[in-house]
Amino acid sequence: MAPILCVGTVGLDTVETPFGRVDEALGGSAAYFAAAASLHAPVQLVSVVGEDFPQEHRTLLAQKADIEGLETLPGRCFRWSGRYHFDMNQRDTLDTQLNVLAEFNPKLPESYRDAEYVFLANVDPVLQLRVLEQSRGAKLTMLDSMNFWISSAREALTDVIRRVDIVMMNEEEVRQYADTSNLLKGARQIIALGPKTLIIKKGEYGAVLFQRNEQEGRDQFFYCPAYPLEDVKDPTGAGDSFAGGFLGYLAGAGDMSMAHLRRALVFGSAVASFTVEDFSVRRLATLTGDELRQRYRDFRELTYFDEV
Amino acid sequence: MAPILCVGTVGLDTVETPFGRVDEALGGSAAYFAAAASLHAPVQLVSVVGEDFPQEHRTLLAQKADIEGLETLPGRCFRWSGRYHFDMNQRDTLDTQLNVLAEFNPKLPESYRDAEYVFLANVDPVLQLRVLEQSRGAKLTMLDSMNFWISSAREALTDVIRRVDIVMMNEEEVRQYADTSNLLKGARQIIALGPKTLIIKKGEYGAVLFQRNEQEGRDQFFYCPAYPLEDVKDPTGAGDSFAGGFLGYLAGAGDMSMAHLRRALVFGSAVASFTVEDFSVRRLATLTGDELRQRYRDFRELTYFDEV
Repeated sequence: MAPILCVGTVGLDTVETPFGRVDEALGGSAAYFAAAASLHAPVQLVSVVGEDFPQEHRTLLAQKADIEGLETLPGRCFRWSGRYHFDMNQRDTLDTQLNVLAEFNPKLPESYRDAEYVFLANVDPVLQLRVLEQSRGAKLTMLDSMNFWISSAREALTDVIRRVDIVMMNEEEVRQYADTSNLLKGARQIIALGPKTLIIKKGEYGAVLFQRNEQEGRDQFFYCPAYPLEDVKDPTGAGDSFAGGFLGYLAGAGDMSMAHLRRALVFGSAVASFTVEDFSVRRLATLTGDELRQRYRDFRELTYFDEV
Repeated sequence: MAPILCVGTVGLDTVETPFGRVDEALGGSAAYFAAAASLHAPVQLVSVVGEDFPQEHRTLLAQKADIEGLETLPGRCFRWSGRYHFDMNQRDTLDTQLNVLAEFNPKLPESYRDAEYVFLANVDPVLQLRVLEQSRGAKLTMLDSMNFWISSAREALTDVIRRVDIVMMNEEEVRQYADTSNLLKGARQIIALGPKTLIIKKGEYGAVLFQRNEQEGRDQFFYCPAYPLEDVKDPTGAGDSFAGGFLGYLAGAGDMSMAHLRRALVFGSAVASFTVEDFSVRRLATLTGDELRQRYRDFRELTYFDEV
């Protein structure tokens, strides 16, 4: 089965929510992505950690991904600390220590360069470009970013957007990048740069997949809601595991038709709904394919209606 | 086909949005409900207007509903004036003049008392109770309300909730009524009072239908997103026409199975997506069944994914 190359962060997260707290738990975009995508296809991970990266975290990561590309640099791990409030859509970053992440310069091991599926998690777009330059086998590339890069590295980010197949942003990022309050106009603007597909994340309201057929002048949408959960313990990593479920499913299926893109979006939403049930990657660490497929069926139950 | 009794407001709306403005246009919950529901089933309207109610508005209403129950009282019509901002989810009420609405005391014409489908639009819950007392044929009753009654007439509102089959609220109202930030817990609390079904409106994010099977300890959800529109001209009346499309479909189908409730929610969302395309009830006035069914199919295209 075609492996997925994932380039992103691995670090130590200290997170507090109304439902508890973890200290220096395994975190980072690449960790969440790998834990989710590995349910569908093998993952090749590129990231950087410090010498203080705990062995138990390394062992867990190695169960989910090929970690030949996980570089250990002198110094301390990337650390992030945040607090969520009762409204889990709001969070405060309490502390960010880049540490070894400041020296991250992704180098793809030879065996990674033929990966057909490539996920560029939210890192400096200059680094994302370097990954694309080293990646000779890529046939489906997907990009995540954030408000910080939109304002501070817009030009480089635009270069990456022009070169990938799928862009993933949240609503506010689409509005910010396209400088419009109209989400649909913003979406068209991003698609006009080159990507075939835009995925717009709407947090607790789910996600939308957007394509545009310029010849027919027609927009195409697919909407998948978030799963209604009674207790969200920790929203950290929802977006990265969503991306892992999405791209993982496509890599496993080896098919990029609209029917498969729809399924992929649901698998992404399904795995994200497990992620938030516990802190860090705990729930993903034990999640089975059967549980995931049952949640997929639950999503169908949630959204299905027949023809009239 | 079984008629639907609708009790609510009819008035004159002055509305300003970034896309234009109307002065003293036909408005009110009963007007929007009737315009939407009449695409599926006959509507019997109960409301009150003043002597200054324009003949053209009366003529339009009479095309959409039986208006024997539209009382004309000495004095001026209910008037509402509001302004929407670029973010169409925000609106300021500039002026509210109750006028004859302050003396509204719904009296059902004899021919209305056997109506099987009853919609209690957002009015004083004390009046809603009086309607239920006069309504002897009701087999499916649906309630709308608002934050004002939750805080100022909680006891009477709770009485109405206990007596209806379907409650419709927006997210904030569920949280406010149930005094919890957890929407699912709030939904269960409302259902525990007696209604079989709760519809939670999420504005631009669509709507959820919620039921609970206490014996099996199982929640049942159906989610329908809002239709992605490029230009929303005026969101006024979206909720009332949504209710009209929903209850109208059920009355037309004469079936309240879950499969039909799902369809009804989609028809409600579909008609609301037309409502907001123009000011007042303009778009609804000319909307055809064919256009509505095409939008229903567009909703299916928007949300459908197959089994795996």
